[in-house]
Amino acid sequence: MVSWFGRRAKRLEIPRLTGRGETLPTTKVDLGELVPPLPQFLGQAAYMELGVFESLAQAATAAPSITVKGQLSRSAGLALAKHESLVDELRRRGTDPAEAMAPFSADLDAFRRMRAGTTWHETLIGCYLTAGLLDDFFAGLAAGLPGDIRSQVVKILQQDAGFAVVVREVTAAIATDPKLASSLALWGRRLVGDTLLIARSALHVSGDLARDESRIEPVFTEIIAAHTRRMDELGLTA
Amino acid sequence: MVSWFGRRAKRLEIPRLTGRGETLPTTKVDLGELVPPLPQFLGQAAYMELGVFESLAQAATAAPSITVKGQLSRSAGLALAKHESLVDELRRRGTDPAEAMAPFSADLDAFRRMRAGTTWHETLIGCYLTAGLLDDFFAGLAAGLPGDIRSQVVKILQQDAGFAVVVREVTAAIATDPKLASSLALWGRRLVGDTLLIARSALHVSGDLARDESRIEPVFTEIIAAHTRRMDELGLTA
Repeated sequence: MVSWFGRRAKRLEIPRLTGRGETLPTTKVDLGELVPPLPQFLGQAAYMELGVFESLAQAATAAPSITVKGQLSRSAGLALAKHESLVDELRRRGTDPAEAMAPFSADLDAFRRMRAGTTWHETLIGCYLTAGLLDDFFAGLAAGLPGDIRSQVVKILQQDAGFAVVVREVTAAIATDPKLASSLALWGRRLVGDTLLIARSALHVSGDLARDESRIEPVFTEIIAAHTRRMDELGLTA
Repeated sequence: MVSWFGRRAKRLEIPRLTGRGETLPTTKVDLGELVPPLPQFLGQAAYMELGVFESLAQAATAAPSITVKGQLSRSAGLALAKHESLVDELRRRGTDPAEAMAPFSADLDAFRRMRAGTTWHETLIGCYLTAGLLDDFFAGLAAGLPGDIRSQVVKILQQDAGFAVVVREVTAAIATDPKLASSLALWGRRLVGDTLLIARSALHVSGDLARDESRIEPVFTEIIAAHTRRMDELGLTA
């Protein structure tokens, strides 16, 4: 089992499910103790989405064609819509959104810069894998939120992110140059490690590590399975 | 009178209206002959809005605070919404949006890079003044479009662009460092020249220059008046 609470999640063992593509049931575990206070949860998720918007807009500007530029811009707009919906939830509760996001801005800005990688295809994969994993993670963790906000947050996070363009562009690039696959797969593995550190930082640990681990494990298993499916879609070995 | 159809609009005389802030009546002139075919009109306007989205997203990433980043991202989203609405109009008419935008991408990409300027405040002013002027211009030119599309296009272009943040940030910067005003005013004057070249490139000239000029002049007078009001708002001399 991967330790979510170790000091560094350096050597991740990525479980591979055999039944790829099947929809996993939503985990019903008591995550209440692991969920941070609502303003923190919403602030971190909202700033995460804002960063996805920024990264996708950057990828759109560097797009090789007008069609792809338009599609990546649309994806950026969908991430922005998630950000704005989460900010609206903060405002509705009388919380200043900028204050709620502030504690997370330094780490998430650094994460956004990391995700850009060194090539356009790395940026695309960086957006897709990290946004996919963190959307799943926050939606999973939301199971521990109070009932009135839980379903709203899950709905926001699970909205379509318009990433089909990423799958098309990356698989086309690999078809043209099969040697790309191994370096992009390495990039995907680097990304998942850094993304899990961000996810881990969102958890409100109780101090009882064994208990915390057993509670978060099912969420973890699901999000890694979904991540592995994304890598498969991209034609990359997880 | 400024020549819209001269080879270069290098030395623009910017008319200054005395009645600043008053709403000018929409000009009722026959612009039908000056309006390019609808796919060209929509393609150029749509790609223009996509570039505004890109520039504002770039400005958002460089924003000095989370609040301002959020506000500029929102503005970027509003420009993207205009782009997507114009693209929808193209699709509704069976026109491939990428094909319709393609003839304008090189000039508008160069224009977008120019508009970024060399400082963050120049980028902000670049977005506000050029998007404001071109929204006004295309909305004015739309008076020459067929009736069924005219009001829809004007409505799209005149949607709120969320530029209050630009006015706040620029006037605050000038209040802190009054010497900024003269260099930013110069920047504003440079921008208007380049923006009018983009506007001019959208006109479908008839060959009868004097007649074309007399038709477009009222639109031109209105958009320059609105531009001058924007410069005033920013605390800059037009």
